[in-house]
Amino acid sequence: MSGRELAKEVRAAVAARAAELTKNGRQPRLAVVTANDDGGSAAYIRSISAAAAREGIACDVARTTTATGITATLTSLADDPEVHGIILQTPLPEGASLAALATLIPVQKDVDGASPESIGRLVAGLPAFAPATAEAVLALLDHYGVELRGRHAVVVGRSVVVGKPAAHLLLDRHATVTICHSRTPDLAAITRQADILVAAAGRAGLIGPWHVSPGTTVIDVGTNATPEGGLAGDVDPAVTGVAAALTPVPGGVGPVTTALLLRHVVEAAAIAG
Amino acid sequence: MSGRELAKEVRAAVAARAAELTKNGRQPRLAVVTANDDGGSAAYIRSISAAAAREGIACDVARTTTATGITATLTSLADDPEVHGIILQTPLPEGASLAALATLIPVQKDVDGASPESIGRLVAGLPAFAPATAEAVLALLDHYGVELRGRHAVVVGRSVVVGKPAAHLLLDRHATVTICHSRTPDLAAITRQADILVAAAGRAGLIGPWHVSPGTTVIDVGTNATPEGGLAGDVDPAVTGVAAALTPVPGGVGPVTTALLLRHVVEAAAIAG
Repeated sequence: MSGRELAKEVRAAVAARAAELTKNGRQPRLAVVTANDDGGSAAYIRSISAAAAREGIACDVARTTTATGITATLTSLADDPEVHGIILQTPLPEGASLAALATLIPVQKDVDGASPESIGRLVAGLPAFAPATAEAVLALLDHYGVELRGRHAVVVGRSVVVGKPAAHLLLDRHATVTICHSRTPDLAAITRQADILVAAAGRAGLIGPWHVSPGTTVIDVGTNATPEGGLAGDVDPAVTGVAAALTPVPGGVGPVTTALLLRHVVEAAAIAG
Repeated sequence: MSGRELAKEVRAAVAARAAELTKNGRQPRLAVVTANDDGGSAAYIRSISAAAAREGIACDVARTTTATGITATLTSLADDPEVHGIILQTPLPEGASLAALATLIPVQKDVDGASPESIGRLVAGLPAFAPATAEAVLALLDHYGVELRGRHAVVVGRSVVVGKPAAHLLLDRHATVTICHSRTPDLAAITRQADILVAAAGRAGLIGPWHVSPGTTVIDVGTNATPEGGLAGDVDPAVTGVAAALTPVPGGVGPVTTALLLRHVVEAAAIAG
């Protein structure tokens, strides 16, 4: 279940809306705040910037190294009417919390659904941007016509940025949802019951063929750096020998996430009018 | 697993703190906003008021019949430095949403964890008051020494006020958590796997003996009005013949919820200093 076709569709629609907004004097603008210039993070920011540019979205990268600097930058971006979307890139400086800092991002500009208010609105069913990665999971399932209502979805991983919001989105679509994590004693006994399995634990190869059943559709959210400088998912590719379907890494959730993030920026710009 | 003993303990501590705060010139004060004078709601408000009075907490009830009236009342209470805790009582006027109106309650005064920001902070692990009912579930499990880490907790019901926050609290305590609901096709097949079963669906007698296993501890959150004017849980009392333990209705989650709500008011008053 490649994500490239869906990402392309979403990005074509984004480009069209961005062009229209720009024609009306309001080019969508994303600000990325980062406190880290290390390999993975820098590569991700380069890829977001390039993707934004390709679809006609302006993208500023603000670099700062301290929590105080992040606070000042976010406060200023929050007030800047030219900026429609803000993302705060992890990793953060020692001791800083993403959710705590993200309280400084207004809900309307919180295009990656990082602030507690966005998360709470999502849980309560009020308008807000969902974290793009979690939304990408649902978008892929919909794109491939996977039924969710009444099915059993198992999410492995309970992070605030992926596992928990993905669980909520699945629940909203009337799936029965189980959330597993590192303290789940017999993971395979639970994941084998899944109609839909979302692997978001951040551990390369955690899910093997014995974790799935022939009916299981597997969405691999993992993006683990390999020693060779590549990217490995949380799911062993050998799972394809057993499961009904699997999203690849790279080329699955990743490109859809980027496309949805850009869609959020365009939506934020449209609302800002 | 009666809740009366635990409620008594919590309330004794609340009374002591309330007395201390009052001595220092800051009597804890709760405001209850209601748009409904019907039987169940009115009885609940009387019971909260009486409980508050007994522990030395002031309690004002503000009655209004429209969403506009609720908005004005909440806005004024939010700004009132004498008011430490605010709860918005359901049912609300036609078309009004609890979460949307609760955005007007500041996090520090949101003693029943109703606002999206409180819910989001709970999910993100930041300080906030949890919905008292959801917290009562955990308090009862702790009081009776039920191990949560690595156990399978099944929550039946996905409401924003009980099911979802209870699931998050259980997840934070390292349980594997499954959320079931009205669209779950074979409920018993899932609930029978539960070490801990939280029934919060709002359907009298939904959980019968065939839904549980000998090892299951059952927490009954249901408070369904019976035709005779009494209160019935979501769990058929016959479950005690199979399960390891069951909280009664009334006398289980209910009194603990009230006690925790009062504790939140006292905590809010202490913080407000």
